[in-house]
Amino acid sequence: MGVTLKKLAREIGCELHGDSDCIVSAVGTLQNAGMGQVSFLANAKYRHYLKTTQASAVIVWPQDLPLSRTNALVSNNPYLAFAKAARLLNPEPQVVAGVHATAVVEGDAVVDPTASIGAHCYIGAGSFIGSGVVIGPGCVVEHGVSMGANSRLVARVTLCHDVCIGANVLIHPGVVVGGDGFGIANDGGHWIKVPQLGSVVIGDDVEIGANTTIDRGALEDTVIEEGVKLDNQIQVAHNVRIGAHTAIAGCAAIAGSTTIGKRCQIGGAVGIVGHLFIADDVHITAMSLVTGNITHAGVFSSGIAAQPRSEWVRNAARVRQLNEIAQRLRGLEKRLDEE
Amino acid sequence: MGVTLKKLAREIGCELHGDSDCIVSAVGTLQNAGMGQVSFLANAKYRHYLKTTQASAVIVWPQDLPLSRTNALVSNNPYLAFAKAARLLNPEPQVVAGVHATAVVEGDAVVDPTASIGAHCYIGAGSFIGSGVVIGPGCVVEHGVSMGANSRLVARVTLCHDVCIGANVLIHPGVVVGGDGFGIANDGGHWIKVPQLGSVVIGDDVEIGANTTIDRGALEDTVIEEGVKLDNQIQVAHNVRIGAHTAIAGCAAIAGSTTIGKRCQIGGAVGIVGHLFIADDVHITAMSLVTGNITHAGVFSSGIAAQPRSEWVRNAARVRQLNEIAQRLRGLEKRLDEE
Amino acid sequence: MGVTLKKLAREIGCELHGDSDCIVSAVGTLQNAGMGQVSFLANAKYRHYLKTTQASAVIVWPQDLPLSRTNALVSNNPYLAFAKAARLLNPEPQVVAGVHATAVVEGDAVVDPTASIGAHCYIGAGSFIGSGVVIGPGCVVEHGVSMGANSRLVARVTLCHDVCIGANVLIHPGVVVGGDGFGIANDGGHWIKVPQLGSVVIGDDVEIGANTTIDRGALEDTVIEEGVKLDNQIQVAHNVRIGAHTAIAGCAAIAGSTTIGKRCQIGGAVGIVGHLFIADDVHITAMSLVTGNITHAGVFSSGIAAQPRSEWVRNAARVRQLNEIAQRLRGLEKRLDEE
Repeated sequence: MGVTLKKLAREIGCELHGDSDCIVSAVGTLQNAGMGQVSFLANAKYRHYLKTTQASAVIVWPQDLPLSRTNALVSNNPYLAFAKAARLLNPEPQVVAGVHATAVVEGDAVVDPTASIGAHCYIGAGSFIGSGVVIGPGCVVEHGVSMGANSRLVARVTLCHDVCIGANVLIHPGVVVGGDGFGIANDGGHWIKVPQLGSVVIGDDVEIGANTTIDRGALEDTVIEEGVKLDNQIQVAHNVRIGAHTAIAGCAAIAGSTTIGKRCQIGGAVGIVGHLFIADDVHITAMSLVTGNITHAGVFSSGIAAQPRSEWVRNAARVRQLNEIAQRLRGLEKRLDEE
Repeated sequence: MGVTLKKLAREIGCELHGDSDCIVSAVGTLQNAGMGQVSFLANAKYRHYLKTTQASAVIVWPQDLPLSRTNALVSNNPYLAFAKAARLLNPEPQVVAGVHATAVVEGDAVVDPTASIGAHCYIGAGSFIGSGVVIGPGCVVEHGVSMGANSRLVARVTLCHDVCIGANVLIHPGVVVGGDGFGIANDGGHWIKVPQLGSVVIGDDVEIGANTTIDRGALEDTVIEEGVKLDNQIQVAHNVRIGAHTAIAGCAAIAGSTTIGKRCQIGGAVGIVGHLFIADDVHITAMSLVTGNITHAGVFSSGIAAQPRSEWVRNAARVRQLNEIAQRLRGLEKRLDEE
Repeated sequence: MGVTLKKLAREIGCELHGDSDCIVSAVGTLQNAGMGQVSFLANAKYRHYLKTTQASAVIVWPQDLPLSRTNALVSNNPYLAFAKAARLLNPEPQVVAGVHATAVVEGDAVVDPTASIGAHCYIGAGSFIGSGVVIGPGCVVEHGVSMGANSRLVARVTLCHDVCIGANVLIHPGVVVGGDGFGIANDGGHWIKVPQLGSVVIGDDVEIGANTTIDRGALEDTVIEEGVKLDNQIQVAHNVRIGAHTAIAGCAAIAGSTTIGKRCQIGGAVGIVGHLFIADDVHITAMSLVTGNITHAGVFSSGIAAQPRSEWVRNAARVRQLNEIAQRLRGLEKRLDEE
């Protein structure tokens, strides 16, 4: 099942320095990889392991080549080259096509014969399941859904009615796509539900992490463009649009009708309020709160790092007096200017 | 399937200005609605679309009537009127009563003959499923649960044992009601579980968003009063009480034994610590942290808006020195006073 | 079903003051407990209820004994003693062993004959389900999983392939263990998935709250050591290690490759960034953000408490000018020093 370094280098686009006939069959970390394993160095923090690694080959930046004591695969993007090596040596398992005996497929749903529908799945009326799709155990696909070729629901995913999933989409357990948006109108102190009549459209090559929720639009659709990568437990509200190739880390929350640009990177637990516009190529660091439009690329933050509580308690109390402090400072400045 | 504007105006409580015989059959946004569609203006930001909309009718505030170039339905609450119009033109689909062949209903559970139990559902012993209830595919209802008339579990919902759900309650996929509260007692460095012996009581007309969790009480019940609206991924800990007609946005977290008043509005990702009392009619803005009682109505905040990282890094460092800064300011004031 | 106070005192390690023959059969709160019920006082806030409680017995600290007007069980850890009393009077319900007729168990999975597999469960190939394990309805256990003795999946839990669960582990509904970590490599503006080849190892006596997600490692395993207690909706990213007997409250998020020590207490909605080291016995208060290593025990914070919005708006604006304010203060100090 192994591959020569010569072949591996060609497949993952690296320049090989060392034994081209050496065979590797697995990947591992610098610390723990052994014979027959290929590792990589992408985070400078771990550079010292280059000296001691037992890996049969390492993928490195050109500047780290002199430090390598084993076969080296040189790349300008070692992490990417490693990702390709890891996939090459660990191909996706083959899945047997067909509908499990315990699955329920409503009469007028269309399931491609090359698709696989797992145990205890439900496929609603009028849904279309494309070629090579894999739906793991316990998924619910309501009526009118379409799933493009080679997409996969790992297990226990819910796709609500009429959502549209592109090709090569990967959705992890517990995800809910197309739940009702949070639309309520106040009627003299009581709330009346606003019917959520839009849907969700998910582009090709999107990945969605465990227990993330993406609400359907109120009138028009919530849209996740191609190549977007969402981590776990993210909340995407109704009528949000997330631009192509944007990546969002776990527990971020995006309120209704906000548009996020392409190639953005949103950190963990970031909150973005509703009806905003975020430009392309914006980075937002962990636990920041975004309350206004961001009209140009750049890095934005508002998280405050923890400190020992005894110090923090005093500082936090002052934050709540900060306007008064600033006014007193202005007063002193005036006093000195007038002297 | 359409309705005349005359009839629509009467049903949704608007004053009609325009062609009373015009027929509408759908709703849409000002930007995209066309012939036969009714739209609305509730957010001033979108007022300019009034000039160009192709909708057959628009629901507007009285002051916007002069700007309308099509049939107008005048209301003092256009969003509410729109909600009613949207429901009228999009009635809930009828569901066929009965228990799906793949559902498991324990012997002594009682399912009303007008209820609908979907594929792969489990209904535990002693549970009571009321008239008109709809339980979608893949739901688990443990033993001793009761569900009031016309409530609905969309799909893949879990109701743990003995929880009590009112009438007209709507629960979205992935919700867990009645999981154990986080009760642990320290025994010399190890944690011992405190049995969670209370339950959860949910009032009428409550809506609960996808993947929200509501824990059962330790000794007494966690209570969600009537008309409460919860968005997605909210965490409600044991023995919380949420007052009637309160609305809470996504990803908020409420720690144990806190009581929230009636008609409150809690923003997204707000954190409220345990054992607090929040009065009626309190609004809390997004990503605020509440650490003390709030004894009167009003709006409360503590979220800080993101700014360019290069500026933020310098400001955030100063936050952690703020007590010292305040003391230095006081020192200067003294020095000047003593001169 | 009751027990004498004499027996109860012995079982839960308390000193009895009062009627040793009095029989109790249930637990309750000081406010609402009645005859035959035992209550406790652990939170000083509720001390005044000691005077009016109708409980047949109360568990109290030695110093509260004089205030007690009923039978007293004296303990140096009343909450722990109460936890034991509650369990004694409310034993776990017995579960019938066997595989439900609607469950699917793949051919080469091994299910101990004393285990119970609920309705609509799926147990994948090569999995091992130990003695006394209880798997509630609607769970998915993929291939190659192992579950130690007496562990329990309440309902609708997902264990992804090859994860390893210890003994006496309790996992609540909606939890996902072993979903793919968020590993992506950038390829000229597009993201390429990094295969997640590690697994998750969960020690004995761990409890995991509803809808929490624990990702599998990229190359090596994500590890939750013995006795860890996780509340609801926590996100644990790939290759995190959580030390033994650490407790984490709801909605906390821990980014990839961070190591948390033993006996830590992490508050609700705390965010911890990736690749950090947190020492043993660290406490972090609610909604703090941790961005650097914490190398010694102690309490750490960065959350800011909400205040009335009109005040907050002014203070928050100043936070964003804080570096300039500090510089102006320094300027004044210099001016005065130079005079």
